[in-house]
Amino acid sequence: MSVAAAQPVTLSDFSSCEISDALIKLGVPHGGHIPDISMFSPTPPASTQSGKICAPAYTVKMVPANDNTSPRLSAHFVDTVTPGSVIVIVAPPGTKNAVWGGLMTAGAQARGAVGVVISGRCRDLAEHRAAGFPVFARGHSTLGQGTFVRPSAIDIPLVITPEGVEGSSGAFPSTEVLPGDWIVADEDGVVCVPQSLVDQVVELATIGREIDARCMQDIKAGKGIQAAFLKYRGK
Amino acid sequence: MSVAAAQPVTLSDFSSCEISDALIKLGVPHGGHIPDISMFSPTPPASTQSGKICAPAYTVKMVPANDNTSPRLSAHFVDTVTPGSVIVIVAPPGTKNAVWGGLMTAGAQARGAVGVVISGRCRDLAEHRAAGFPVFARGHSTLGQGTFVRPSAIDIPLVITPEGVEGSSGAFPSTEVLPGDWIVADEDGVVCVPQSLVDQVVELATIGREIDARCMQDIKAGKGIQAAFLKYRGK
Amino acid sequence: MSVAAAQPVTLSDFSSCEISDALIKLGVPHGGHIPDISMFSPTPPASTQSGKICAPAYTVKMVPANDNTSPRLSAHFVDTVTPGSVIVIVAPPGTKNAVWGGLMTAGAQARGAVGVVISGRCRDLAEHRAAGFPVFARGHSTLGQGTFVRPSAIDIPLVITPEGVEGSSGAFPSTEVLPGDWIVADEDGVVCVPQSLVDQVVELATIGREIDARCMQDIKAGKGIQAAFLKYRGK
Repeated sequence: MSVAAAQPVTLSDFSSCEISDALIKLGVPHGGHIPDISMFSPTPPASTQSGKICAPAYTVKMVPANDNTSPRLSAHFVDTVTPGSVIVIVAPPGTKNAVWGGLMTAGAQARGAVGVVISGRCRDLAEHRAAGFPVFARGHSTLGQGTFVRPSAIDIPLVITPEGVEGSSGAFPSTEVLPGDWIVADEDGVVCVPQSLVDQVVELATIGREIDARCMQDIKAGKGIQAAFLKYRGK
Repeated sequence: MSVAAAQPVTLSDFSSCEISDALIKLGVPHGGHIPDISMFSPTPPASTQSGKICAPAYTVKMVPANDNTSPRLSAHFVDTVTPGSVIVIVAPPGTKNAVWGGLMTAGAQARGAVGVVISGRCRDLAEHRAAGFPVFARGHSTLGQGTFVRPSAIDIPLVITPEGVEGSSGAFPSTEVLPGDWIVADEDGVVCVPQSLVDQVVELATIGREIDARCMQDIKAGKGIQAAFLKYRGK
Repeated sequence: MSVAAAQPVTLSDFSSCEISDALIKLGVPHGGHIPDISMFSPTPPASTQSGKICAPAYTVKMVPANDNTSPRLSAHFVDTVTPGSVIVIVAPPGTKNAVWGGLMTAGAQARGAVGVVISGRCRDLAEHRAAGFPVFARGHSTLGQGTFVRPSAIDIPLVITPEGVEGSSGAFPSTEVLPGDWIVADEDGVVCVPQSLVDQVVELATIGREIDARCMQDIKAGKGIQAAFLKYRGK
């Protein structure tokens, strides 16, 4: 067995799309997808795989600053991040200020975090890009966090609800992100893989990639998509 | 007459904006414009003209996957595309999954399609960019098509309705795209030119470009926009 | 005193985020931020500072074209722009056509304007990018202005209201832009600084930058964000 072949296949070998496909096959209704979060750092256009993150979630919940009943944190949420994790932050829907900036990227890198995924906005784009730190968000802002929202809890389950206008086909389901769930994010978007499904996802994504590669070969040869799907996917 | 001068002027010589201007002059209320569809491939920032498409529409209508009354296709819609056409896909408003991915770009290129315009989302961005295949869409997603929507009809008239929040100035009109209508798409957006108007659009856009070039010369010389418009546009 | 030290610090030395921070400290509820306006020119990804503008506002109000009661302008609004200013245009919310194009960039450059900020859409992206003229807008379009909206007033106070779906945390306040207010815009977004606050903003932003630089040093050294904030910000 060659050294290359000896490398075990892991979640990080797959794109966010391949992983969504596997989750759909496993019956997860939203395929783990969190809509409308895009790569803001590194500098787009990101080359293939550049800026991609694949790591367990360290979760952070923000509440409006004037919420006096929700719990408060005793430490800054970046200082307590688990090395090797991706920070997942949920801000209240419609929040116009940023909840992530340059000092936080510096702190996250010092603590060994691999990136941040924000259901909300970011700022200091030039700093994240200069630092090569992956930042995925719904948008950008010039406003900092303090006056508008505050962190209330870490290491808790998050529910991330799609924002924006609801389509005629009804509401897209919310995605739950538990601490330790795997987050895969690249230029196509963000996917959450429940910890209990990681092995099955890797198995199905491995099969899926092989089937897609065979389909691709036939399709490029002009044999048709329907024929390729029938031959290799059985439908 | 020089060789260059012998080339007939065609629709593909004009930008989407020049064509919208001509359609407005012809009384088309929305100037052929389909709002909020942007270039996702080739890799932005696209240089001028790069990624621009200009070709007749091959239309595809998607319906929710659980719609059991709408017709079904007997072949994959990419396999039956007319060479030299642009595929125009309408997904139900608000659809969060992609309706276009890497295998479809490969199939479309094998069949000679020149690009795809999607009232909906795309995925596998890196693959389209690597293939140099133009993809215009409302957004991106990690989710594939199968579980959420399905193609129901090809070569039929499409009605593309603006999505998002309606403005205070009232609803922007929907754009009808008939099979064979010409689609022009570049970094400014997407325009549909009814087949019956192509010759008039080319004629008006030719005049419009010449007038704009004269205006530009005077404006760059500091003679003022109002004076230039009065001199060359007559108002 | 060195030559470098002799240069006075001005608003243009600071990022939009640093200025928002100063305005928040001064009690401006929205920190001067106008949400959801992004850099469309020069070509993204803009390198740090490239494309940034910092200049007094020359204000332009657009109304629907069929509004026959609002005042009309006797000159083209670009011809009357004050040299060294940034043109700030407000179109009616939800406007789908562009209110800025290539001829206007040429006219603005001929008159010495430094950029344009649009609560609305732009077109002719390739022309602005080729000209190196900064354009900030809510989106792009292929449609010109004439048929849909018209300029009604210049040099008047503008009220810029956030567009899109309102968040659960309630409406974000509108931002008033008075003629002569300073506009700072970069890749993080757009900020308006009331003329009367410029000196205080420069003072606070200077202090803020120094404190942030000290925090950054400690944070990069792994001393923790909370400890750094406590040491240098006092909380």
